[in-house]
Amino acid sequence: MDGALTHLDAAGNARMVDVSDKSETSRWARARAVVRMSPDAAARVAAGDAPKGDVATVARIAAIQAAKRTDELIPLAHSLPLTHVEPTVTVDVEQGTVTLVAEARVAARTGVEMEAMVACSIGALAVYDMVKGIEPGVVIERIELLDKTGGKSDFHR
Amino acid sequence: MDGALTHLDAAGNARMVDVSDKSETSRWARARAVVRMSPDAAARVAAGDAPKGDVATVARIAAIQAAKRTDELIPLAHSLPLTHVEPTVTVDVEQGTVTLVAEARVAARTGVEMEAMVACSIGALAVYDMVKGIEPGVVIERIELLDKTGGKSDFHR
Amino acid sequence: MDGALTHLDAAGNARMVDVSDKSETSRWARARAVVRMSPDAAARVAAGDAPKGDVATVARIAAIQAAKRTDELIPLAHSLPLTHVEPTVTVDVEQGTVTLVAEARVAARTGVEMEAMVACSIGALAVYDMVKGIEPGVVIERIELLDKTGGKSDFHR
Amino acid sequence: MDGALTHLDAAGNARMVDVSDKSETSRWARARAVVRMSPDAAARVAAGDAPKGDVATVARIAAIQAAKRTDELIPLAHSLPLTHVEPTVTVDVEQGTVTLVAEARVAARTGVEMEAMVACSIGALAVYDMVKGIEPGVVIERIELLDKTGGKSDFHR
Amino acid sequence: MDGALTHLDAAGNARMVDVSDKSETSRWARARAVVRMSPDAAARVAAGDAPKGDVATVARIAAIQAAKRTDELIPLAHSLPLTHVEPTVTVDVEQGTVTLVAEARVAARTGVEMEAMVACSIGALAVYDMVKGIEPGVVIERIELLDKTGGKSDFHR
Amino acid sequence: MDGALTHLDAAGNARMVDVSDKSETSRWARARAVVRMSPDAAARVAAGDAPKGDVATVARIAAIQAAKRTDELIPLAHSLPLTHVEPTVTVDVEQGTVTLVAEARVAARTGVEMEAMVACSIGALAVYDMVKGIEPGVVIERIELLDKTGGKSDFHR
Repeated sequence: MDGALTHLDAAGNARMVDVSDKSETSRWARARAVVRMSPDAAARVAAGDAPKGDVATVARIAAIQAAKRTDELIPLAHSLPLTHVEPTVTVDVEQGTVTLVAEARVAARTGVEMEAMVACSIGALAVYDMVKGIEPGVVIERIELLDKTGGKSDFHR
Repeated sequence: MDGALTHLDAAGNARMVDVSDKSETSRWARARAVVRMSPDAAARVAAGDAPKGDVATVARIAAIQAAKRTDELIPLAHSLPLTHVEPTVTVDVEQGTVTLVAEARVAARTGVEMEAMVACSIGALAVYDMVKGIEPGVVIERIELLDKTGGKSDFHR
Repeated sequence: MDGALTHLDAAGNARMVDVSDKSETSRWARARAVVRMSPDAAARVAAGDAPKGDVATVARIAAIQAAKRTDELIPLAHSLPLTHVEPTVTVDVEQGTVTLVAEARVAARTGVEMEAMVACSIGALAVYDMVKGIEPGVVIERIELLDKTGGKSDFHR
Repeated sequence: MDGALTHLDAAGNARMVDVSDKSETSRWARARAVVRMSPDAAARVAAGDAPKGDVATVARIAAIQAAKRTDELIPLAHSLPLTHVEPTVTVDVEQGTVTLVAEARVAARTGVEMEAMVACSIGALAVYDMVKGIEPGVVIERIELLDKTGGKSDFHR
Repeated sequence: MDGALTHLDAAGNARMVDVSDKSETSRWARARAVVRMSPDAAARVAAGDAPKGDVATVARIAAIQAAKRTDELIPLAHSLPLTHVEPTVTVDVEQGTVTLVAEARVAARTGVEMEAMVACSIGALAVYDMVKGIEPGVVIERIELLDKTGGKSDFHR
Repeated sequence: MDGALTHLDAAGNARMVDVSDKSETSRWARARAVVRMSPDAAARVAAGDAPKGDVATVARIAAIQAAKRTDELIPLAHSLPLTHVEPTVTVDVEQGTVTLVAEARVAARTGVEMEAMVACSIGALAVYDMVKGIEPGVVIERIELLDKTGGKSDFHR
């Protein structure tokens, strides 16, 4: 692991990275968040969601809307004019999980990891919001980047 | 576990819960998010953070700002005039973790769980944003409610 | 019709009405927007919406989210901590209409007409957005207040 | 009328259309909203507006500001860096109408109809807000796209 | 001058002050910003503003809108449901000044100084925006609190 | 000084300048705001800020976040996808000043003066917010553009 955090300058001050001299490339990223609950609660989500009902739709809309506002939420993030955000929601009743995967695309001077991470995180929080009334102990158990391409180096988990 | 999801009406439509007839009580909630990284990366965070430097401050400001906008992020959440938001950031270099705990308070007709959950989630994402340049595989490994008081029933993990 | 516009002062300057000395009362308002399209397009909306699918849900979420931001959209509006927003969506295939009705509630010093009007308008625009690809000539043909109670005088259309 | 709604995928889920592979072209759109009121109320608007006073200016500023936030209001809309928004306000006292026409321009991968529609709608709602104190029954009687150019197919009403 | 900054805790961390245990009182504040330009430029502002035209209106709308969003702009500020914001704009052609005075009112647990300061600052910046094309060297030469009442201690300059 | 205000049309109506036909160039601007307080208060800021503590960081984050939202704050401003914002904070205890300098960069059809001016203004207001508890009479004594390049004509103070 080389060097210091890219978001700190030589004096240790947090900073927005200057991307003025980079050129626009096609960027893509995909991230995932898993919400863990009892199989019972997951069954309610699935029921409230069958065949393609409101719980998943609310989570997906929340994810898309949040992705578009990543620059307002993450202090050092740049404003990116996303060309695509695609969240998907999967319920596994037996395992007691609701999984959000979000893809983001843009032609930009910097990556879209944060947009994908914010999208699936807020989608997961929207699921939590709808489930907390019946099970307040529900946990978002993992949020992680799955892939990113188009920058200096790709990443695939 | 009784009944259906409180955020779905009889027809299965997502809805904002009507709290018009509830009375204002003093509400408190506390939530936690844990960001897991290599001890090496955690050491950089701690270094960029010593003695009380920018990484933790950026994360805490992001958490406070997000808490105040919970109603814009979570579609079915109410707008709550928070009287307090207090995020704290702890780095455990050996374990490779940065932990965000956020408390939220309000006098309102409904709870502040979502505000505490949103605050520590966005704080954790801000940490991820600052660390991803040196370690893109960093994971937010758990976001969970720790406590809530002031509503129909308290919750303590 | 008495007096001048309440939002203009004696010199004709637009102003936010000062509600500091009014007391909080329980306010309610209901408004309606009608989107007119061909029966063919309405059938697609209904199909994309059966049994309780995404088109109506997207419109309702857009309506709720917009209602909470009325003070940012309408320059002279006050910020109101809504206790309830309830949009409903009805499709009449034969007539070629999608109708949004939105109710809003709050305990406040001023009315919630604007929140109900904004909610159904933005819900209707979200429907337009989803239909414009197949029929760009779709029209929002009427947006109107249906009821308001809790202020100096009630209104029922 | 061919195919299904462009904003629904094969499974019926609402989605943001992926415009990553489209190229930027110069886009223009124009939309209109008509607010109908009594000639008496329209006379007050005109008076509060003479020679170029506050009512029209408030409506135009509301329209411009809303156009720039279309992506936050319309869930499946893309973020577009508008190069121009131009709302105009016309009062016809005899007919009892206030008419908002809004033009929007951008160089982008997708059209600006929604920006023009949102601009004139919010402008019309701002007019309603200023008039409702003297005439709560005022109606926004028609919101429609007038023109769009620069995409796959032009539209002129 | 006693004690440390109220916005830093014992460890020096910035924090939102906890106002949960304070009771709501009626708060008022008034602040002023002065924009200095050449008499020539001020004459254009006055001309573009006669008799009650657009420059002053744009500045006042910008001031009102910003006041309502103070909590989003000032990281440690609380969200306050303002009951009144009143900006006034005065042009002194001979002196070459445009002066913004903004009053803010609220019933709240904490003061509205920031809302008044933000309102006149953004109003002044909106004036700068409209004048910079003819005179880029225009300066906002002073922003200051004039009065505040309703808290622990009043302030009058 | 030639012509009228660029933001007023021939009829005196405020307008957003149409930049559709301009080509993108690399734009840079730098602005400064000075907050004047007693040497005593400045010493507290410096103490609360040593070695690179929270006061300056909060001000810088507020400045960056505000720069990204300039188009929402300044009614006639365009939305610009900033490639860089860099605020710096300097405390001069003896003089009793805290100085914010903010640079902004973008490749765009119009300049970034407003982004730099908004950034240092909101940063200065965030400093005021943290100091007002010990010295409410603190004044933001000057906000001014220092440099701009990349447009029709450069400016250097």
